[in-house]
Amino acid sequence: MNIKPLSNHLFIESIEEEKKTQSGIVLPENVEKEKPVKGKIVAVGTGKINEKGERIPMSVKVGDMVLFKKYGPDEIEIEGKKYLVGDEDDILAILEF
Amino acid sequence: MNIKPLSNHLFIESIEEEKKTQSGIVLPENVEKEKPVKGKIVAVGTGKINEKGERIPMSVKVGDMVLFKKYGPDEIEIEGKKYLVGDEDDILAILEF
Amino acid sequence: MNIKPLSNHLFIESIEEEKKTQSGIVLPENVEKEKPVKGKIVAVGTGKINEKGERIPMSVKVGDMVLFKKYGPDEIEIEGKKYLVGDEDDILAILEF
Amino acid sequence: MNIKPLSNHLFIESIEEEKKTQSGIVLPENVEKEKPVKGKIVAVGTGKINEKGERIPMSVKVGDMVLFKKYGPDEIEIEGKKYLVGDEDDILAILEF
Amino acid sequence: MNIKPLSNHLFIESIEEEKKTQSGIVLPENVEKEKPVKGKIVAVGTGKINEKGERIPMSVKVGDMVLFKKYGPDEIEIEGKKYLVGDEDDILAILEF
Amino acid sequence: MNIKPLSNHLFIESIEEEKKTQSGIVLPENVEKEKPVKGKIVAVGTGKINEKGERIPMSVKVGDMVLFKKYGPDEIEIEGKKYLVGDEDDILAILEF
Amino acid sequence: MNIKPLSNHLFIESIEEEKKTQSGIVLPENVEKEKPVKGKIVAVGTGKINEKGERIPMSVKVGDMVLFKKYGPDEIEIEGKKYLVGDEDDILAILEF
Repeated sequence: MNIKPLSNHLFIESIEEEKKTQSGIVLPENVEKEKPVKGKIVAVGTGKINEKGERIPMSVKVGDMVLFKKYGPDEIEIEGKKYLVGDEDDILAILEF
Repeated sequence: MNIKPLSNHLFIESIEEEKKTQSGIVLPENVEKEKPVKGKIVAVGTGKINEKGERIPMSVKVGDMVLFKKYGPDEIEIEGKKYLVGDEDDILAILEF
Repeated sequence: MNIKPLSNHLFIESIEEEKKTQSGIVLPENVEKEKPVKGKIVAVGTGKINEKGERIPMSVKVGDMVLFKKYGPDEIEIEGKKYLVGDEDDILAILEF
Repeated sequence: MNIKPLSNHLFIESIEEEKKTQSGIVLPENVEKEKPVKGKIVAVGTGKINEKGERIPMSVKVGDMVLFKKYGPDEIEIEGKKYLVGDEDDILAILEF
Repeated sequence: MNIKPLSNHLFIESIEEEKKTQSGIVLPENVEKEKPVKGKIVAVGTGKINEKGERIPMSVKVGDMVLFKKYGPDEIEIEGKKYLVGDEDDILAILEF
Repeated sequence: MNIKPLSNHLFIESIEEEKKTQSGIVLPENVEKEKPVKGKIVAVGTGKINEKGERIPMSVKVGDMVLFKKYGPDEIEIEGKKYLVGDEDDILAILEF
Repeated sequence: MNIKPLSNHLFIESIEEEKKTQSGIVLPENVEKEKPVKGKIVAVGTGKINEKGERIPMSVKVGDMVLFKKYGPDEIEIEGKKYLVGDEDDILAILEF
């Protein structure tokens, strides 16, 4: 199955940061997790159409590591796999390594 | 009876995903269901009219399998059959198989 | 008395669907009714004026059977007769038989 | 005293419908009244100014019998007399007899 | 001290109507007062600037007796004197005597 | 330290009016104070940029005594000194003495 | 890792002011802190795209000391480090020393 987002929608696989204590100990999984803000773009739309009927190109692409608004994207489950789905406006920054 | 949506409205037949446990067992129907996000387009409008009086063509067509916003479309019952009715903006992505 | 709606307002006579049980038995009137979503257009405005001062023609006409948004039109009572009054935007689709 | 409304404001004298029971008996005044939706235009503004600085002519005139939005106009009392004051957008239809 | 309102702001001295009973008796001051809707314009701005950078002339002037929206203007106290301050949009009508 | 506001932001030093009783007695400081509405402009931005990319000049300048919306500007504390920070839209009038 | 903000987003390192009592005593850290309003810009986007498709240049740059709206930017934690992330609109003023 292939996901083809419309407009400026995009799908993100969230990456949950390991929670370490200040002394560096990795906390076990049942400790309360932060809502994720980091993820990998897995599908992007072709861009929103503006008032003049022109398509605005997207500023992110598949594979980009991004920071997104905590309460922007919604969770969606497709064939047992969880994604975050949002708009280009939900993306705060691209992370480069 | 034939449904002819106006503007950018569209009608969707929702497809409820089988809920499987992690070990692959299909859960019986009386288990609490997720609100559906997957469906088949069964009727589409001819497109919204913009400020200039031009009709914006729809980006989905009858028969398309789509993902839609969980709290976007509303339920409607016509002659005993349930549909979800929404706008083009409620459609997140087209699914291709 | 003649009702002449202004702008894109329209008046609808709602049609309440007979509620049948799955076995086909028609339920008596005192059973809780669904809010109607189906009706017949009985009066339409001449259309909204856009920013340029042009009148946008209406896409429905008197006599059309329509589906409308459940919580769109408001109830209004004129000379003892109940109508639903809404805008063109409240109409989801025209029904053809 | 003369009321000269500005912009697209208008003043309405509401007409309360006689409440009859189905058998035609007129109910006494202390029975709970419906909020009125019918009235006579007693004063109209010269029309709203649009973005281009042009005045949009009003579609109702003094003396018109109108239906208006139940929760649109506000009550106002001037020299002991009650009026409803609203905008052209609050008028749903003109009634012709 | 001179008040020079900016944009389309204006200052109003409210006039509280004498509350009379139906038999014409003027009620004493400690009886619950209605929020005022009538007043005299005491200061007006030079007008709002529109999107094109043009100043829109005001439709009221100092000295005009006006009716205003009950919940539009805010109370403000300057050097022990109470005013109502609002925008041109809060003015419903000019009263002529 | 120098405060250079961006866009149409401005910083105000509020002036709290002395509260006098009707007989002219100045009330001591621990009596409940009114939220201030009068102040002196201490810093102004260079003006907002409109849709066309043009800067709209500010209508107030440093040193102006102004009346502002009671619930418009926010309190901000910089190096132990309290300011009110708002936009040009929060300014109701310039006071001239 | 490098943060490249999109549009008019920016990342801020907040600077918490030392809380002194009026007599000049610095309060210990466990005393309730004010929400910060002062910070250093650590990353800026390339600017928002307007309706015409033109990029609006940013009015702040990396290294600028700024005052920002108390409830504007959101907290975000990236690799154990806390930032405030907001838009250009959240910046009230640049501080020059």
